[in-house]
Amino acid sequence: MLPKALENAIDALGRLPGVGPRTAERYAYFLFRSDQSLSKNISETLDNLHTGVKNCPKTFALIDSSEEISPLYDDPKRDKKTVLVVEEPLDIYAIEATRAYSGTYHVLGGAVSPIDGITPEQLHIKELVARVAEDAVEEIIIATNPSVEGESTALLLQKMLSEKYPDLKITRLARGLPLGVDLGYADQITLSAALNNRTDL
Amino acid sequence: MLPKALENAIDALGRLPGVGPRTAERYAYFLFRSDQSLSKNISETLDNLHTGVKNCPKTFALIDSSEEISPLYDDPKRDKKTVLVVEEPLDIYAIEATRAYSGTYHVLGGAVSPIDGITPEQLHIKELVARVAEDAVEEIIIATNPSVEGESTALLLQKMLSEKYPDLKITRLARGLPLGVDLGYADQITLSAALNNRTDL
Repeated sequence: MLPKALENAIDALGRLPGVGPRTAERYAYFLFRSDQSLSKNISETLDNLHTGVKNCPKTFALIDSSEEISPLYDDPKRDKKTVLVVEEPLDIYAIEATRAYSGTYHVLGGAVSPIDGITPEQLHIKELVARVAEDAVEEIIIATNPSVEGESTALLLQKMLSEKYPDLKITRLARGLPLGVDLGYADQITLSAALNNRTDL
Repeated sequence: MLPKALENAIDALGRLPGVGPRTAERYAYFLFRSDQSLSKNISETLDNLHTGVKNCPKTFALIDSSEEISPLYDDPKRDKKTVLVVEEPLDIYAIEATRAYSGTYHVLGGAVSPIDGITPEQLHIKELVARVAEDAVEEIIIATNPSVEGESTALLLQKMLSEKYPDLKITRLARGLPLGVDLGYADQITLSAALNNRTDL
């Protein structure tokens, strides 16, 4: 019943994560009503997405296809003896936004999850283990997500790294109360952690 | 800091309605991680969107570019003496899904809204007025949204049409629609009831 071209666009946009038929319809109709340059702009950027972006072979961060290696690793100002480990490439930009970190990064490419069929072998763990020796790394900061998967991945990393490098310092991001959240709304695990890791005032 | 190609895709996707930077980032990264065929599929359908879809010159419904006129008008089974007036083309599909209507449609292209600068002249009202004479229309069913703009558009239409055609029957969808819910979001039973209980304006 709908024009074929519109239906095709709705179907395609409906494959984006979290986008149902109603939202896809809204996007498609909005694009149809908007100037054609917007659709063109989106389709061009999507065409360039796979050719213009690749993973850094060392840190697995996202880099321009023209780059050899992540500038966040290559920059001599970045301390290669400290490596902050994240699950996904975009997590890097959240840390960078704090301007509080000058070490390098390592992207695992996810977290161990038996339910989703993600095994340790699918993550970039052995490359991390190799980096510790290659770059004479002194500290690994584990910044996986505070989820069940992130926690078990952190424990696994801790085990694997400390077995091979007994002198390596392994830390993880502090657990505590986030800014602006009332004490009464904090979950018990967070609150316990905040209490145990209390700092001098 | 982000790879240029990824940043461009995030910027472009962020122009979709209701999509903030965080959602755009999620879409772009999902597409980068997915097989390239998905990005290709989306960009191709968007390229075809403007060339493959046009407005019916009679009813202003959306039709295939290859079609002369809306099949919902052209079909001899559709009663041309009854015209159901909607704000947007996609509203037609919500009415069609009820299978309770066999007349024809007329799309206004919006509702009168002084705040958004939409004047009656920008809507397809004069084409509707012309249709009443051309097709010897006997009943106009006004199915604008139950919003302030939709209601005032309904009253305006009633005034303009009844002045020119004193014998024309003008009805509107019954107040079965919950206030503040867009036509496209109404369930089929509510929409059928609203259609069956339409009241004189």
